[in-house]
This record gives sequence, C-alpha cells and structure tokens, in this order.
Amino acid sequence: MLLVNGEPGETLPVSDRGLQYGDGLFETIEVNGQRPVFFDRHLKRLEDGCRRLGIPCPALAILTEEAGLLCRQAPGRAVLKIIVTSGSGGRGYRRPEAIQSTRILSLHPYPDYPDAFGTEGIHARFCQTRLGINPALAGIKHLNRLEQVLARAEWTDQSVQEGIMLDFAGQVIEGTMTNLFYVKDHALHTATLAQSGIAGIIRGLIMELANQHQLTVNELSYTSELLLSADEIFVCNSIVGIWPVKRIDQTAFEPGPVTRKIQQWLADYKHETLRREQ
Amino acid sequence: MLLVNGEPGETLPVSDRGLQYGDGLFETIEVNGQRPVFFDRHLKRLEDGCRRLGIPCPALAILTEEAGLLCRQAPGRAVLKIIVTSGSGGRGYRRPEAIQSTRILSLHPYPDYPDAFGTEGIHARFCQTRLGINPALAGIKHLNRLEQVLARAEWTDQSVQEGIMLDFAGQVIEGTMTNLFYVKDHALHTATLAQSGIAGIIRGLIMELANQHQLTVNELSYTSELLLSADEIFVCNSIVGIWPVKRIDQTAFEPGPVTRKIQQWLADYKHETLRREQ
Repeated sequence: MLLVNGEPGETLPVSDRGLQYGDGLFETIEVNGQRPVFFDRHLKRLEDGCRRLGIPCPALAILTEEAGLLCRQAPGRAVLKIIVTSGSGGRGYRRPEAIQSTRILSLHPYPDYPDAFGTEGIHARFCQTRLGINPALAGIKHLNRLEQVLARAEWTDQSVQEGIMLDFAGQVIEGTMTNLFYVKDHALHTATLAQSGIAGIIRGLIMELANQHQLTVNELSYTSELLLSADEIFVCNSIVGIWPVKRIDQTAFEPGPVTRKIQQWLADYKHETLRREQ
Repeated sequence: MLLVNGEPGETLPVSDRGLQYGDGLFETIEVNGQRPVFFDRHLKRLEDGCRRLGIPCPALAILTEEAGLLCRQAPGRAVLKIIVTSGSGGRGYRRPEAIQSTRILSLHPYPDYPDAFGTEGIHARFCQTRLGINPALAGIKHLNRLEQVLARAEWTDQSVQEGIMLDFAGQVIEGTMTNLFYVKDHALHTATLAQSGIAGIIRGLIMELANQHQLTVNELSYTSELLLSADEIFVCNSIVGIWPVKRIDQTAFEPGPVTRKIQQWLADYKHETLRREQ
C-alpha cells in the first residue's frame, strides 16, 4: 500500500530529484495496533532534516492524515516508511526556485526477526566500509545511503545480524541500520553524531530515559578497541527496539543488567505512549 | 523522451533502490549530430563504477542500441543521461541476492549557455559545503549527490556559473558540476581524486591530450591559496567542454594561452572522433 503525494500509486516520475541525486529524506516507523509509534518524534526529525537540507516539509497534518489512512489497513505490526524529496525540476544539481516536495508513504510487513535477538542478543561484525565525514549531513536520515548499502553488502553470513561502521577518523559511529550504545563503569556511552551517522529516534529516547533515571550518558568519540572493552553493548532502532550484542567478530559479550533495565524503560515508555494516545 | 528498461515511460517503481538509497550511478553525455559523444568512454566509466559498487552493468550492446534510438530523435545538440540502479528488492540496505539492475535513458535539451562562457570565461566562487572523504566512492559518478545539491544551493547570483568545492581536509577537489584544472609554471595541475570527487570523462581526456602534446600534468592535493596563485584556471565537463575561469570570488584571472591550446586540442580530438565514427 502506497500513497504518492496523497494518491494511491506504485510509481514516481523518473525526473524526481530523490532518484536523480538522492535529494531527500526518509523515516522508518513501527506501526503497532494500527498506529505509528513515536510518530511525533519522527515528524519532528523529518521537519528538522527538511529544514537543514532546504526542502519544504509537507504539512504535518497531511502526513498525519495519510499515515493514519495507511495504518488503519495494517496488520497488528507493520512498518510505515515516509520519503520526502525535493520533487522534480531545476537544472542539474540546482533546485528549482519553487520546490514542490514529493511525499511517499508506504506500508511494509514487519520483519520476521526472532524474539531471541532482543532477549539473547545478536552477532555483529566490524565493517570495512567507512562513513564519510560531513557535518552538513550528519544526523540527517537522508537518501544518500550508498555507504550503508556497501557496508551491508560486505557479509552474507546469516548468523551475523549487524555491521558496525567507523568513520574515516577511525571512530566507531553506529551500525548499518542501528545506533550503538555501550555500558562501561555503570555509565552509558554512544558516539557523538556531529560529523557522521544518523540521529535515531530510539537513540534519542534512550538518552532521555537514561537522564530521567539518573543513568549517566556520555556522547563521545571512541575507537573499536574501547568498544571491545565494554561491559555491555546494544544496538537500537525504531523497528527492532533494542538488541543486545553478544558477539563482535571473535569477542563475546553478555547481555547485562543495564541493557535489560533500558529495554524495560523503553517497553514501559512505549506502552504508556500507546495507551495515552488511545 | 525516456526509456526505462527499454520501454518508453516516464515513471519508475517507488521501490527502486535508486530512489530509496541512491544505490546507482549515472552518465551525462553530449549528443552531437544525433550521436552520443565519447560514448565508449562513458560506457567504460559506467562499467567501472558498476563493478566498484557491485551493481551488474546492463549489456553495453543494449545501452548502445537504446542510446541510438534516443539520439536519432535528438535535435542538433542535446544531452543524453543514463542512470543505472540496483533495481528493486532486498531488505533495507541489504540488496537482493540476484540484483536486477534498472536502466533509464533520457534525452534532454542542450543547456543554453552563452558561447562567451567558453571564449571569455566564467565567474566562480568557493563553496562552504565540503565534500566528504570516502575512497570507496571516490571517482564514481554515483547517485549520492546531496553535497553537490547543497553546494549549488549556496548561491542564486546568475553572474556566477560555478562553485568550487573543497574536501574536509581543506583541499580543492572540483566544481559542483565540473572538474577543475590550473596552469602554473607552464604545467597543468588537477586534484587527485583518490578520496573525493568524480573522475570526469573530459578531465581524463584532457590529461591524455596533454600527455600526447608533452604538456606536464600533475595530479596533486592543493589548497585554495595555491589555486588563487595560478596563471590560468579552467573547468570542464562533458556538456560545457572547457570554460576558462576569469574570476573566483574577488580574484581575477585571464583566459591564457595554455587553456586556449587545450580547448583547441579537445575540439580537434572531438571533431576527429565524430568524423571517424561517421
């Protein structure tokens, strides 16, 4: 099920700048009980990203209405994807003077990840593909994702669920499709995203929840050596929630008490949010 | 006029990974006398780029046939664009096991640049937007072009024709839509593209022609200060050919004898190539 600028349809003009140049952004949203989870947070990130890229953001009322239309057709759990591009027109890289954004909302099956990924943890690996450094694009969930595609193409071993990406300065940034946290000395740590990476909704929420519960969170630059010395490691995104990491290449980790606690905070917050919105 | 996988059509499935992730490449080709200019060079770059990105390149015989179909409908001068993407399918960043590439060929009007840009030169500016550093993507004309879009959005002054981009190490790389050369002490200089930038067809051809004519060419890393001390500067691409630069921000330059000589070599080579292919 797809809506392109409000109309049911499976296609887009080839001239769309989203295809021609990756000139756009996206959001990937969990649908639960026919409602988009943390939708206000996703809309806010989309608005922020549009403003930073100079693309007019579609009216939130329209996005909300169209998301509602799709979600009412969803099974118990699904994935809603929103793409916003700078539309067609302009000459080459130069955008038209009056940008007419394109919005695409689509509904997808919820991926069939085993529950054990959340309870027992996953296997991860370090990727060779590095993330470029660009403060102008850092944090934004934009459509220029070749680095992630190349990183994900590095392995086919189905026992490995996620790849960890470093930037060109050798700092650990995130997973190919997740943000990464580690626990060390009873504090939570995650990469600063000032120069690379995507500012995930669940990442932001975990930092808020940690603050509320007086758990120290450090945003920092750190190396893979430091990561491998962590007490606990987990990855997160809007679809999988939180997955403990039980192995990175040859190094084993235990899903520990801090990870369990944060999983519970997130589950409680989500439950409360869905209840309140009912 | 458009061909999508060989069929006339203006649209593409929204699920195409070219839109979803910028997972693809493109070529922009001058059409002259109903023939694509330097077509063998464009095809070779497309093949090289596909191999580096792991996308199966469409058969060159098919691309040649479809390009011919479009070019026979072109006026005297036009622009042929070829886009190749990794098609639809896969899960998220992960490509499908059997990639079915999408190919899109489209014909566009030749831009109405005044002849004076080639004879008298253009005005350029330094852009604030920097190019990320990524050897895995460097040189490839891929679809992740947000940096160029943001750089081109920095100015609306119509008297400025091109913006010059630096990488994050502060080295000059290229124009937003052109490669950049400078002349100093009777030798030609251009940025090395090992970490950033697009390896332009005309850039490569100019280097070959310079070698044939015993003009020294240096590929190097250089700063904007060094550029501003040049004797001559020019930019080039497949559509505009060679444009001398007569001003960068407040610094004036003269279109000089070496630039004139290279313009002549390029014109002669193109004339000879078109004659030979007739």
